[in-house]
Amino acid sequence: MKYNINISFQNIIFNLQKFWSNKGFTLFQPIDLEVGAGTSHPITYFNSLGNNNIYAAYVQPSRRPTDGRYGKNINRLYYYYQFQVIMKPSLINMKELYISSLKYLGINFDFNDIIFIEDNWENPTLGACGLGWEVWLNGMEITQFTYFQQMGNIKCKPIIGEITYGLERIAMCLQEINSIYDIIWNIGIKNNINYKDIFYKHEFEYSIYNFKKANIKFLFKIFNEYEKEILRLLNINKPLLLPSYDITLKIIHIFNLLDSRQAISSIERQNYIIKINNITKIIAKKYIS
Amino acid sequence: MKYNINISFQNIIFNLQKFWSNKGFTLFQPIDLEVGAGTSHPITYFNSLGNNNIYAAYVQPSRRPTDGRYGKNINRLYYYYQFQVIMKPSLINMKELYISSLKYLGINFDFNDIIFIEDNWENPTLGACGLGWEVWLNGMEITQFTYFQQMGNIKCKPIIGEITYGLERIAMCLQEINSIYDIIWNIGIKNNINYKDIFYKHEFEYSIYNFKKANIKFLFKIFNEYEKEILRLLNINKPLLLPSYDITLKIIHIFNLLDSRQAISSIERQNYIIKINNITKIIAKKYIS
Repeated sequence: MKYNINISFQNIIFNLQKFWSNKGFTLFQPIDLEVGAGTSHPITYFNSLGNNNIYAAYVQPSRRPTDGRYGKNINRLYYYYQFQVIMKPSLINMKELYISSLKYLGINFDFNDIIFIEDNWENPTLGACGLGWEVWLNGMEITQFTYFQQMGNIKCKPIIGEITYGLERIAMCLQEINSIYDIIWNIGIKNNINYKDIFYKHEFEYSIYNFKKANIKFLFKIFNEYEKEILRLLNINKPLLLPSYDITLKIIHIFNLLDSRQAISSIERQNYIIKINNITKIIAKKYIS
Repeated sequence: MKYNINISFQNIIFNLQKFWSNKGFTLFQPIDLEVGAGTSHPITYFNSLGNNNIYAAYVQPSRRPTDGRYGKNINRLYYYYQFQVIMKPSLINMKELYISSLKYLGINFDFNDIIFIEDNWENPTLGACGLGWEVWLNGMEITQFTYFQQMGNIKCKPIIGEITYGLERIAMCLQEINSIYDIIWNIGIKNNINYKDIFYKHEFEYSIYNFKKANIKFLFKIFNEYEKEILRLLNINKPLLLPSYDITLKIIHIFNLLDSRQAISSIERQNYIIKINNITKIIAKKYIS
Protein backbone atom coordinates (compact mmCIF):
# COMPACT_ATOMS: atom_id res chain seq x y z
CA MET A 1 0.00 0.00 0.00
CA LYS A 2 1.46 3.34 -1.09
CA TYR A 3 -1.03 5.59 0.70
CA ASN A 4 -3.06 4.98 3.79
CA ILE A 5 -6.03 7.22 3.06
CA ASN A 6 -8.30 8.28 0.28
CA ILE A 7 -8.80 11.97 0.63
CA SER A 8 -10.91 14.36 -1.46
CA PHE A 9 -9.41 17.44 -3.12
CA GLN A 10 -11.33 19.77 -0.83
CA ASN A 11 -10.06 17.88 2.22
CA ILE A 12 -6.46 18.12 0.99
CA ILE A 13 -6.89 21.91 0.98
CA PHE A 14 -8.68 21.77 4.31
CA ASN A 15 -5.99 19.67 5.97
CA LEU A 16 -3.15 21.83 4.65
CA GLN A 17 -4.95 24.88 6.03
CA LYS A 18 -5.44 23.13 9.36
CA PHE A 19 -1.81 21.98 9.49
CA TRP A 20 -0.34 25.46 8.91
CA SER A 21 -2.99 27.20 10.98
CA ASN A 22 -2.10 24.92 13.91
CA LYS A 23 1.49 26.17 13.58
CA GLY A 24 0.23 29.75 13.97
CA PHE A 25 0.25 30.72 10.29
CA THR A 26 -2.29 33.26 9.05
CA LEU A 27 -4.70 31.90 6.43
CA PHE A 28 -5.48 34.37 3.67
CA GLN A 29 -7.96 34.16 0.83
CA PRO A 30 -6.85 34.03 -2.83
CA ILE A 31 -6.37 37.35 -4.63
CA ASP A 32 -9.44 38.01 -6.78
CA LEU A 33 -7.43 38.78 -9.91
CA GLU A 34 -6.19 36.55 -12.72
CA VAL A 35 -2.62 35.50 -11.91
CA GLY A 36 -0.23 32.79 -13.11
CA ALA A 37 0.98 31.70 -9.68
CA GLY A 38 0.57 32.14 -5.94
CA THR A 39 3.78 34.19 -5.83
CA SER A 40 1.98 37.08 -7.55
CA HIS A 41 -0.49 37.52 -4.65
CA PRO A 42 0.10 40.96 -3.05
CA ILE A 43 0.60 39.19 0.30
CA THR A 44 3.78 37.54 -1.00
CA TYR A 45 4.97 40.45 -3.14
CA PHE A 46 4.75 43.19 -0.53
CA ASN A 47 5.81 41.01 2.40
CA SER A 48 8.97 39.99 0.57
CA LEU A 49 10.02 43.65 0.76
CA GLY A 50 10.97 45.45 3.96
CA ASN A 51 11.88 43.81 7.24
CA ASN A 52 8.54 42.75 8.73
CA ASN A 53 7.78 39.16 9.78
CA ILE A 54 5.14 37.10 8.00
CA TYR A 55 3.90 33.53 8.42
CA ALA A 56 1.01 32.89 6.07
CA ALA A 57 -0.70 30.38 3.78
CA TYR A 58 -3.37 30.56 1.10
CA VAL A 59 -4.83 28.82 -1.94
CA GLN A 60 -4.41 30.60 -5.27
CA PRO A 61 -6.25 29.75 -8.49
CA SER A 62 -3.64 30.06 -11.25
CA ARG A 63 -4.34 30.79 -14.90
CA ARG A 64 -1.68 30.05 -17.53
CA PRO A 65 -3.16 30.60 -20.99
CA THR A 66 -0.40 28.72 -22.89
CA ASP A 67 -0.91 25.61 -20.73
CA GLY A 68 -4.49 24.96 -21.88
CA ARG A 69 -5.02 21.73 -23.88
CA TYR A 70 -8.76 21.83 -24.69
CA GLY A 71 -9.43 19.39 -21.84
CA LYS A 72 -7.59 16.65 -23.77
CA ASN A 73 -4.39 16.36 -21.73
CA ILE A 74 -4.68 14.43 -18.46
CA ASN A 75 -1.66 16.22 -16.92
CA ARG A 76 -2.00 19.83 -17.94
CA LEU A 77 -4.54 22.55 -17.27
CA TYR A 78 -5.07 26.22 -18.08
CA TYR A 79 -6.70 26.74 -14.65
CA TYR A 80 -5.45 25.00 -11.55
CA TYR A 81 -4.80 25.53 -7.84
CA GLN A 82 -1.66 26.18 -5.85
CA PHE A 83 -1.31 26.11 -2.08
CA GLN A 84 1.21 28.71 -1.04
CA VAL A 85 3.05 28.98 2.29
CA ILE A 86 5.37 31.88 3.10
CA MET A 87 7.61 32.41 6.12
CA LYS A 88 9.82 35.35 6.95
CA PRO A 89 12.30 35.01 8.42
CA SER A 90 12.33 31.48 6.98
CA LEU A 91 12.21 28.81 9.66
CA ILE A 92 15.24 26.55 10.00
CA ASN A 93 12.94 23.48 10.02
CA MET A 94 10.98 24.49 6.88
CA LYS A 95 11.79 21.19 5.16
CA GLU A 96 10.77 19.12 8.20
CA LEU A 97 7.53 21.07 8.53
CA TYR A 98 6.81 20.41 4.87
CA ILE A 99 7.44 16.65 5.27
CA SER A 100 5.17 16.67 8.35
CA SER A 101 2.43 18.35 6.30
CA LEU A 102 2.58 15.54 3.73
CA LYS A 103 2.37 12.94 6.50
CA TYR A 104 -0.63 14.86 7.84
CA LEU A 105 -2.25 14.36 4.41
CA GLY A 106 -1.68 10.63 4.78
CA ILE A 107 1.53 10.01 2.81
CA ASN A 108 3.50 7.20 4.41
CA PHE A 109 7.23 7.59 3.74
CA ASP A 110 7.93 3.90 4.41
CA PHE A 111 6.33 3.27 1.03
CA ASN A 112 6.93 6.49 -0.93
CA ASP A 113 10.06 8.07 -2.37
CA ILE A 114 10.59 11.77 -1.98
CA ILE A 115 13.53 13.64 -3.51
CA PHE A 116 14.60 17.30 -3.64
CA ILE A 117 16.20 18.54 -6.87
CA GLU A 118 17.95 21.90 -6.99
CA ASP A 119 16.11 24.26 -9.30
CA ASN A 120 16.74 27.95 -8.95
CA TRP A 121 13.89 30.15 -9.86
CA GLU A 122 13.29 33.53 -11.42
CA ASN A 123 10.36 35.64 -12.46
CA PRO A 124 11.64 38.55 -14.56
CA THR A 125 8.35 40.50 -14.65
CA LEU A 126 8.21 40.64 -10.83
CA GLY A 127 11.98 41.20 -10.66
CA ALA A 128 12.18 38.12 -8.46
CA CYS A 129 14.71 35.31 -8.13
CA GLY A 130 15.69 32.76 -5.57
CA LEU A 131 17.39 29.52 -4.67
CA GLY A 132 15.04 26.64 -4.92
CA TRP A 133 14.25 22.97 -5.01
CA GLU A 134 11.68 20.91 -6.82
CA VAL A 135 10.14 18.19 -4.70
CA TRP A 136 9.39 14.92 -6.49
CA LEU A 137 7.15 12.20 -5.04
CA ASN A 138 7.42 8.82 -6.78
CA GLY A 139 8.63 10.50 -9.96
CA MET A 140 6.11 13.34 -10.07
CA GLU A 141 6.90 16.97 -9.23
CA ILE A 142 4.52 18.00 -6.47
CA THR A 143 6.05 21.09 -4.86
CA GLN A 144 8.46 23.97 -5.35
CA PHE A 145 10.59 25.34 -2.51
CA THR A 146 12.12 28.79 -2.90
CA TYR A 147 14.16 31.15 -0.78
CA PHE A 148 13.68 34.53 -2.42
CA GLN A 149 16.83 36.55 -2.81
CA GLN A 150 15.21 39.38 -4.69
CA MET A 151 11.74 40.82 -5.27
CA GLY A 152 10.96 43.92 -7.37
CA ASN A 153 14.74 43.88 -8.06
CA ILE A 154 15.37 44.61 -4.38
CA LYS A 155 17.43 42.28 -2.22
CA CYS A 156 15.24 40.46 0.34
CA LYS A 157 16.48 40.99 3.87
CA PRO A 158 15.63 38.88 5.76
CA ILE A 159 15.11 36.07 3.24
CA ILE A 160 11.52 34.89 2.76
CA GLY A 161 10.87 31.16 2.30
CA GLU A 162 8.10 29.94 0.00
CA ILE A 163 6.52 26.50 -0.40
CA THR A 164 4.23 26.05 -3.40
CA TYR A 165 2.23 22.81 -3.35
CA GLY A 166 0.78 21.62 -6.67
CA LEU A 167 -2.60 20.55 -5.28
CA GLU A 168 -3.77 18.53 -8.30
CA ARG A 169 -0.49 16.58 -8.42
CA ILE A 170 -0.74 15.74 -4.72
CA ALA A 171 -4.38 14.70 -5.16
CA MET A 172 -3.40 12.42 -8.07
CA CYS A 173 -0.76 10.76 -5.86
CA LEU A 174 -3.06 10.34 -2.88
CA GLN A 175 -6.01 9.13 -4.92
CA GLU A 176 -3.73 6.88 -7.04
CA ILE A 177 -5.11 8.08 -10.36
CA ASN A 178 -3.52 9.08 -13.68
CA SER A 179 -5.82 11.82 -14.94
CA ILE A 180 -6.42 15.23 -13.43
CA TYR A 181 -10.03 14.96 -14.57
CA ASP A 182 -10.60 11.92 -12.34
CA ILE A 183 -9.64 13.78 -9.17
CA ILE A 184 -12.45 13.45 -6.64
CA TRP A 185 -13.09 16.98 -5.47
CA ASN A 186 -15.75 16.07 -2.94
CA ILE A 187 -17.63 13.03 -1.73
CA GLY A 188 -21.01 14.66 -2.27
CA ILE A 189 -24.46 14.20 -0.80
CA LYS A 190 -25.68 11.96 -3.60
CA ASN A 191 -22.56 11.24 -5.65
CA ASN A 192 -18.90 12.19 -5.93
CA ILE A 193 -18.04 15.47 -7.61
CA ASN A 194 -14.93 15.15 -9.74
CA TYR A 195 -12.61 17.58 -11.50
CA LYS A 196 -14.17 16.78 -14.87
CA ASP A 197 -17.66 17.76 -13.67
CA ILE A 198 -16.37 21.12 -12.54
CA PHE A 199 -13.67 22.05 -15.05
CA TYR A 200 -13.85 20.15 -18.33
CA LYS A 201 -16.10 22.68 -20.09
CA HIS A 202 -14.09 25.54 -18.58
CA GLU A 203 -10.81 24.13 -19.92
CA PHE A 204 -12.28 23.51 -23.34
CA GLU A 205 -13.85 26.95 -23.79
CA TYR A 206 -10.88 28.82 -22.37
CA SER A 207 -8.44 26.98 -24.66
CA ILE A 208 -10.46 28.25 -27.63
CA TYR A 209 -10.55 31.74 -26.15
CA ASN A 210 -6.86 31.86 -25.20
CA PHE A 211 -5.47 30.35 -28.42
CA LYS A 212 -7.94 31.50 -31.04
CA LYS A 213 -10.46 34.13 -30.01
CA ALA A 214 -9.01 36.71 -27.62
CA ASN A 215 -8.89 40.05 -29.46
CA ILE A 216 -5.20 40.82 -30.05
CA LYS A 217 -5.62 44.44 -31.08
CA PHE A 218 -7.76 45.18 -28.03
CA LEU A 219 -5.30 43.40 -25.71
CA PHE A 220 -2.40 45.52 -27.01
CA LYS A 221 -4.51 48.63 -26.55
CA ILE A 222 -5.52 47.90 -22.95
CA PHE A 223 -1.96 46.83 -22.09
CA ASN A 224 -0.74 50.27 -23.13
CA GLU A 225 -3.58 52.13 -21.45
CA TYR A 226 -3.17 50.23 -18.16
CA GLU A 227 0.58 50.86 -18.28
CA LYS A 228 -0.05 54.63 -18.56
CA GLU A 229 -2.63 54.39 -15.77
CA ILE A 230 -0.16 52.66 -13.42
CA LEU A 231 2.61 55.19 -14.10
CA ARG A 232 0.12 58.00 -13.45
CA LEU A 233 -0.93 56.42 -10.10
CA LEU A 234 2.71 56.00 -9.13
CA ASN A 235 3.67 59.57 -9.97
CA ILE A 236 1.19 61.37 -7.74
CA ASN A 237 2.28 62.85 -4.45
CA LYS A 238 1.17 59.86 -2.36
CA PRO A 239 1.48 57.02 -4.89
CA LEU A 240 -1.30 54.40 -4.85
CA LEU A 241 0.90 51.33 -4.52
CA LEU A 242 -1.70 48.65 -3.88
CA PRO A 243 -4.05 49.60 -6.76
CA SER A 244 -0.98 50.01 -9.00
CA TYR A 245 0.23 46.54 -8.15
CA ASP A 246 -3.22 45.03 -8.81
CA ILE A 247 -3.34 46.71 -12.24
CA THR A 248 0.17 45.37 -12.88
CA LEU A 249 -1.21 41.86 -12.31
CA LYS A 250 -3.81 42.68 -14.96
CA ILE A 251 -1.20 43.67 -17.54
CA ILE A 252 0.84 40.55 -16.77
CA HIS A 253 -2.25 38.46 -17.52
CA ILE A 254 -2.84 40.46 -20.74
CA PHE A 255 0.79 39.80 -21.69
CA ASN A 256 0.25 36.06 -21.05
CA LEU A 257 -2.85 36.14 -23.26
CA LEU A 258 -0.93 37.88 -26.06
CA ASP A 259 1.62 35.11 -25.66
CA SER A 260 -0.97 32.33 -26.03
CA ARG A 261 -2.35 34.17 -29.09
CA GLN A 262 1.24 34.13 -30.49
CA ALA A 263 0.96 37.87 -31.01
CA ILE A 264 4.38 38.74 -29.59
CA SER A 265 7.68 38.00 -31.32
CA SER A 266 10.65 36.93 -29.20
CA ILE A 267 12.23 40.40 -29.49
CA GLU A 268 9.02 42.20 -28.56
CA ARG A 269 8.58 39.69 -25.75
CA GLN A 270 11.75 40.93 -24.10
CA ASN A 271 10.57 44.53 -24.41
CA TYR A 272 7.27 43.72 -22.73
CA ILE A 273 9.04 41.96 -19.87
CA ILE A 274 11.23 45.04 -19.40
CA LYS A 275 8.18 47.32 -19.44
CA ILE A 276 6.47 45.27 -16.74
CA ASN A 277 9.61 44.95 -14.67
CA ASN A 278 10.10 48.72 -14.82
CA ILE A 279 6.77 49.04 -13.07
CA THR A 280 7.33 46.36 -10.41
CA LYS A 281 10.72 47.97 -9.67
CA ILE A 282 9.11 51.38 -9.08
CA ILE A 283 6.41 49.86 -6.84
CA ALA A 284 8.98 47.98 -4.76
CA LYS A 285 11.24 51.01 -4.40
CA LYS A 286 8.41 53.32 -3.36
CA TYR A 287 7.01 50.67 -0.99
CA ILE A 288 10.17 50.39 1.08
CA SER A 289 11.09 54.11 0.97
CA MET B 1 -22.22 36.19 28.85
CA LYS B 2 -23.39 36.69 25.30
CA TYR B 3 -20.88 34.41 23.56
CA ASN B 4 -19.03 31.41 24.88
CA ILE B 5 -15.95 31.56 22.70
CA ASN B 6 -13.47 33.97 21.24
CA ILE B 7 -12.81 32.88 17.71
CA SER B 8 -10.47 34.37 15.11
CA PHE B 9 -11.70 35.49 11.68
CA GLN B 10 -9.81 32.70 9.93
CA ASN B 11 -11.36 30.14 12.28
CA ILE B 12 -14.85 31.49 11.60
CA ILE B 13 -14.25 30.75 7.92
CA PHE B 14 -12.66 27.43 8.77
CA ASN B 15 -15.56 26.33 10.99
CA LEU B 16 -18.20 27.34 8.45
CA GLN B 17 -16.34 25.33 5.82
CA LYS B 18 -16.15 22.38 8.19
CA PHE B 19 -19.82 22.64 9.12
CA TRP B 20 -21.08 22.62 5.53
CA SER B 21 -18.48 20.13 4.34
CA ASN B 22 -19.66 17.73 7.08
CA LYS B 23 -23.14 18.00 5.59
CA GLY B 24 -21.75 16.87 2.21
CA PHE B 25 -21.49 20.31 0.58
CA THR B 26 -18.76 20.92 -1.99
CA LEU B 27 -16.27 23.63 -1.00
CA PHE B 28 -15.20 25.84 -3.88
CA GLN B 29 -12.56 28.54 -4.05
CA PRO B 30 -13.46 32.21 -4.68
CA ILE B 31 -13.66 33.38 -8.30
CA ASP B 32 -10.43 35.20 -9.17
CA LEU B 33 -12.21 38.22 -10.61
CA GLU B 34 -13.40 41.47 -9.03
CA VAL B 35 -17.05 41.04 -8.06
CA GLY B 36 -19.50 42.85 -5.79
CA ALA B 37 -20.97 39.75 -4.14
CA GLY B 38 -20.76 35.97 -3.86
CA THR B 39 -23.87 35.65 -6.01
CA SER B 40 -21.82 36.70 -9.07
CA HIS B 41 -19.51 33.64 -8.82
CA PRO B 42 -20.03 31.46 -11.93
CA ILE B 43 -20.81 28.53 -9.61
CA THR B 44 -23.97 30.27 -8.41
CA TYR B 45 -24.91 31.89 -11.73
CA PHE B 46 -24.70 28.78 -13.93
CA ASN B 47 -26.03 26.38 -11.31
CA SER B 48 -29.14 28.52 -10.84
CA LEU B 49 -30.02 27.68 -14.44
CA GLY B 50 -31.07 24.25 -15.67
CA ASN B 51 -32.25 21.39 -13.50
CA ASN B 52 -29.05 19.96 -11.98
CA ASN B 53 -28.53 19.60 -8.23
CA ILE B 54 -25.90 21.60 -6.38
CA TYR B 55 -24.87 21.80 -2.73
CA ALA B 56 -21.89 24.10 -2.39
CA ALA B 57 -20.16 26.72 -0.25
CA TYR B 58 -17.32 29.19 -0.75
CA VAL B 59 -15.78 32.42 0.47
CA GLN B 60 -15.92 35.38 -1.91
CA PRO B 61 -13.93 38.60 -1.57
CA SER B 62 -16.35 41.36 -2.54
CA ARG B 63 -15.40 44.77 -3.89
CA ARG B 64 -17.91 47.61 -3.79
CA PRO B 65 -16.22 50.82 -4.90
CA THR B 66 -18.93 53.17 -3.59
CA ASP B 67 -18.72 51.61 -0.10
CA GLY B 68 -15.10 52.71 0.53
CA ARG B 69 -14.63 55.24 3.36
CA TYR B 70 -10.84 55.84 3.35
CA GLY B 71 -10.47 53.46 6.30
CA LYS B 72 -12.33 55.98 8.51
CA ASN B 73 -15.65 54.19 8.99
CA ILE B 74 -15.65 51.34 11.51
CA ASN B 75 -18.67 49.65 9.87
CA ARG B 76 -18.07 49.94 6.16
CA LEU B 77 -15.45 48.63 3.75
CA TYR B 78 -14.70 48.71 0.04
CA TYR B 79 -13.24 45.18 0.25
CA TYR B 80 -14.76 42.52 2.46
CA TYR B 81 -15.61 38.82 2.60
CA GLN B 82 -18.84 36.92 2.13
CA PHE B 83 -19.42 33.25 2.89
CA GLN B 84 -21.87 31.86 0.38
CA VAL B 85 -23.89 28.64 0.63
CA ILE B 86 -26.11 27.41 -2.20
CA MET B 87 -28.48 24.47 -2.29
CA LYS B 88 -30.61 23.19 -5.14
CA PRO B 89 -33.18 21.92 -4.67
CA SER B 90 -33.28 24.01 -1.52
CA LEU B 91 -33.48 21.88 1.62
CA ILE B 92 -36.61 22.12 3.71
CA ASN B 93 -34.50 22.58 6.86
CA MET B 94 -32.29 25.36 5.40
CA LYS B 95 -33.16 27.71 8.27
CA GLU B 96 -32.44 25.05 10.95
CA LEU B 97 -29.13 24.21 9.27
CA TYR B 98 -28.22 27.89 9.30
CA ILE B 99 -29.06 28.23 13.01
CA SER B 100 -26.98 25.10 13.69
CA SER B 101 -24.04 26.65 11.84
CA LEU B 102 -24.19 29.73 14.09
CA LYS B 103 -24.28 27.49 17.17
CA TYR B 104 -21.27 25.68 15.73
CA LEU B 105 -19.46 29.05 15.67
CA GLY B 106 -20.27 29.43 19.36
CA ILE B 107 -23.35 31.62 19.40
CA ASN B 108 -25.55 30.68 22.33
CA PHE B 109 -29.21 31.45 21.62
CA ASP B 110 -30.12 31.53 25.30
CA PHE B 111 -28.36 34.89 25.40
CA ASN B 112 -28.68 36.22 21.84
CA ASP B 113 -31.66 37.48 19.84
CA ILE B 114 -32.01 36.44 16.26
CA ILE B 115 -34.74 37.73 13.97
CA PHE B 116 -35.64 37.22 10.31
CA ILE B 117 -36.97 40.23 8.39
CA GLU B 118 -38.55 39.80 4.99
CA ASP B 119 -36.46 41.53 2.35
CA ASN B 120 -36.94 40.50 -1.24
CA TRP B 121 -33.90 40.86 -3.42
CA GLU B 122 -33.08 41.73 -6.99
CA ASN B 123 -29.97 42.19 -9.07
CA PRO B 124 -30.99 43.78 -12.38
CA THR B 125 -27.59 43.32 -14.12
CA LEU B 126 -27.67 39.54 -13.55
CA GLY B 127 -31.41 39.46 -14.29
CA ALA B 128 -31.91 37.89 -10.87
CA CYS B 129 -34.58 38.21 -8.22
CA GLY B 130 -35.85 36.23 -5.28
CA LEU B 131 -37.76 36.04 -2.04
CA GLY B 132 -35.53 36.73 0.89
CA TRP B 133 -34.92 37.48 4.53
CA GLU B 134 -32.36 39.53 6.34
CA VAL B 135 -31.07 37.88 9.49
CA TRP B 136 -30.40 40.21 12.40
CA LEU B 137 -28.39 39.20 15.47
CA ASN B 138 -28.72 41.54 18.45
CA GLY B 139 -29.63 44.40 16.14
CA MET B 140 -26.98 43.86 13.48
CA GLU B 141 -27.63 42.39 10.03
CA ILE B 142 -25.37 39.36 9.67
CA THR B 143 -26.83 37.27 6.86
CA GLN B 144 -29.09 37.34 3.82
CA PHE B 145 -31.32 34.38 2.86
CA THR B 146 -32.63 34.19 -0.68
CA TYR B 147 -34.68 31.77 -2.72
CA PHE B 148 -33.92 32.72 -6.31
CA GLN B 149 -36.95 32.86 -8.55
CA GLN B 150 -35.09 34.10 -11.58
CA MET B 151 -31.53 34.23 -12.91
CA GLY B 152 -30.47 35.66 -16.28
CA ASN B 153 -34.19 36.53 -16.61
CA ILE B 154 -35.02 32.81 -16.68
CA LYS B 155 -37.32 31.22 -14.11
CA CYS B 156 -35.37 28.95 -11.71
CA LYS B 157 -36.79 25.45 -11.63
CA PRO B 158 -36.12 23.95 -9.16
CA ILE B 159 -35.60 26.92 -6.85
CA ILE B 160 -32.06 27.47 -5.57
CA GLY B 161 -31.58 28.59 -1.96
CA GLU B 162 -28.73 30.94 -1.04
CA ILE B 163 -27.31 31.91 2.35
CA THR B 164 -24.86 34.82 2.38
CA TYR B 165 -23.05 35.28 5.68
CA GLY B 166 -21.44 38.68 6.30
CA LEU B 167 -18.21 37.37 7.83
CA GLU B 168 -16.98 40.65 9.31
CA ARG B 169 -20.33 41.30 11.00
CA ILE B 170 -20.34 37.81 12.52
CA ALA B 171 -16.74 38.27 13.69
CA MET B 172 -17.67 41.60 15.33
CA CYS B 173 -20.51 39.88 17.21
CA LEU B 174 -18.41 36.92 18.31
CA GLN B 175 -15.40 39.01 19.29
CA GLU B 176 -17.68 41.62 20.95
CA ILE B 177 -16.03 44.60 19.25
CA ASN B 178 -17.37 47.73 17.57
CA SER B 179 -14.86 48.34 14.80
CA ILE B 180 -14.18 46.16 11.76
CA TYR B 181 -10.52 47.15 12.02
CA ASP B 182 -10.24 45.52 15.47
CA ILE B 183 -11.30 42.09 14.17
CA ILE B 184 -8.67 39.53 15.14
CA TRP B 185 -7.93 37.71 11.91
CA ASN B 186 -5.46 35.26 13.44
CA ILE B 187 -3.84 34.53 16.76
CA GLY B 188 -0.35 34.60 15.27
CA ILE B 189 2.99 33.07 16.22
CA LYS B 190 4.26 36.20 17.96
CA ASN B 191 1.24 38.48 18.08
CA ASN B 192 -2.34 38.75 16.88
CA ILE B 193 -2.94 39.84 13.31
CA ASN B 194 -5.93 42.13 13.06
CA TYR B 195 -7.99 43.52 10.20
CA LYS B 196 -6.29 46.90 10.42
CA ASP B 197 -2.83 45.36 9.90
CA ILE B 198 -4.02 43.68 6.73
CA PHE B 199 -6.51 46.10 5.20
CA TYR B 200 -6.22 49.67 6.45
CA LYS B 201 -3.74 50.81 3.79
CA HIS B 202 -5.70 48.89 1.15
CA GLU B 203 -8.97 50.63 2.09
CA PHE B 204 -7.32 54.04 2.16
CA GLU B 205 -5.56 53.76 -1.20
CA TYR B 206 -8.52 52.14 -2.96
CA SER B 207 -10.90 54.84 -1.72
CA ILE B 208 -8.66 57.44 -3.39
CA TYR B 209 -8.48 55.32 -6.54
CA ASN B 210 -12.21 54.56 -6.69
CA PHE B 211 -13.48 58.04 -5.89
CA LYS B 212 -10.81 60.29 -7.36
CA LYS B 213 -8.23 58.68 -9.60
CA ALA B 214 -9.70 55.90 -11.78
CA ASN B 215 -9.54 57.09 -15.41
CA ILE B 216 -13.14 57.70 -16.47
CA LYS B 217 -12.47 58.02 -20.21
CA PHE B 218 -10.48 54.78 -20.23
CA LEU B 219 -13.18 52.97 -18.20
CA PHE B 220 -15.89 53.98 -20.69
CA LYS B 221 -13.67 52.84 -23.54
CA ILE B 222 -12.91 49.39 -22.10
CA PHE B 223 -16.54 48.93 -21.10
CA ASN B 224 -17.54 49.37 -24.74
CA GLU B 225 -14.71 47.22 -26.08
CA TYR B 226 -15.42 44.38 -23.64
CA GLU B 227 -19.12 44.56 -24.49
CA LYS B 228 -18.30 44.10 -28.19
CA GLU B 229 -15.89 41.27 -27.30
CA ILE B 230 -18.58 39.42 -25.32
CA LEU B 231 -21.18 39.75 -28.09
CA ARG B 232 -18.59 38.45 -30.57
CA LEU B 233 -17.82 35.42 -28.36
CA LEU B 234 -21.54 34.72 -27.96
CA ASN B 235 -22.27 34.93 -31.68
CA ILE B 236 -19.85 32.26 -32.87
CA ASN B 237 -21.07 28.81 -33.78
CA LYS B 238 -20.24 27.27 -30.39
CA PRO B 239 -20.50 30.29 -28.09
CA LEU B 240 -17.87 30.61 -25.37
CA LEU B 241 -20.23 30.98 -22.43
CA LEU B 242 -17.80 30.72 -19.51
CA PRO B 243 -15.24 33.26 -20.84
CA SER B 244 -18.15 35.53 -21.85
CA TYR B 245 -19.57 35.40 -18.36
CA ASP B 246 -16.17 36.18 -16.80
CA ILE B 247 -15.77 39.21 -19.06
CA THR B 248 -19.30 40.26 -18.08
CA LEU B 249 -18.13 40.30 -14.46
CA LYS B 250 -15.33 42.63 -15.58
CA ILE B 251 -17.73 45.09 -17.18
CA ILE B 252 -19.96 45.01 -14.10
CA HIS B 253 -16.93 46.01 -12.02
CA ILE B 254 -16.07 48.75 -14.54
CA PHE B 255 -19.66 49.98 -14.27
CA ASN B 256 -19.34 50.03 -10.46
CA LEU B 257 -16.12 52.04 -10.76
CA LEU B 258 -17.78 54.54 -13.10
CA ASP B 259 -20.48 54.79 -10.47
CA SER B 260 -18.00 55.57 -7.66
CA ARG B 261 -16.37 58.16 -9.96
CA GLN B 262 -19.86 59.69 -10.37
CA ALA B 263 -19.38 59.50 -14.13
CA ILE B 264 -22.82 58.11 -14.92
CA SER B 265 -26.05 60.11 -14.72
CA SER B 266 -29.17 58.37 -13.44
CA ILE B 267 -30.58 58.10 -16.99
CA GLU B 268 -27.34 56.68 -18.41
CA ARG B 269 -27.21 54.36 -15.41
CA GLN B 270 -30.40 52.67 -16.50
CA ASN B 271 -29.03 52.24 -20.02
CA TYR B 272 -25.88 50.58 -18.73
CA ILE B 273 -27.90 48.19 -16.56
CA ILE B 274 -29.97 47.26 -19.63
CA LYS B 275 -26.80 46.73 -21.69
CA ILE B 276 -25.35 44.36 -19.08
CA ASN B 277 -28.64 42.57 -18.56
CA ASN B 278 -28.94 42.02 -22.34
CA ILE B 279 -25.69 40.07 -22.12
CA THR B 280 -26.54 38.00 -19.04
CA LYS B 281 -29.89 37.14 -20.67
CA ILE B 282 -28.16 35.83 -23.82
CA ILE B 283 -25.67 33.80 -21.76
CA ALA B 284 -28.43 32.23 -19.66
CA LYS B 285 -30.57 31.42 -22.70
CA LYS B 286 -27.70 29.83 -24.60
CA TYR B 287 -26.57 27.94 -21.49
CA ILE B 288 -29.85 26.10 -21.00
CA SER B 289 -30.57 25.54 -24.72
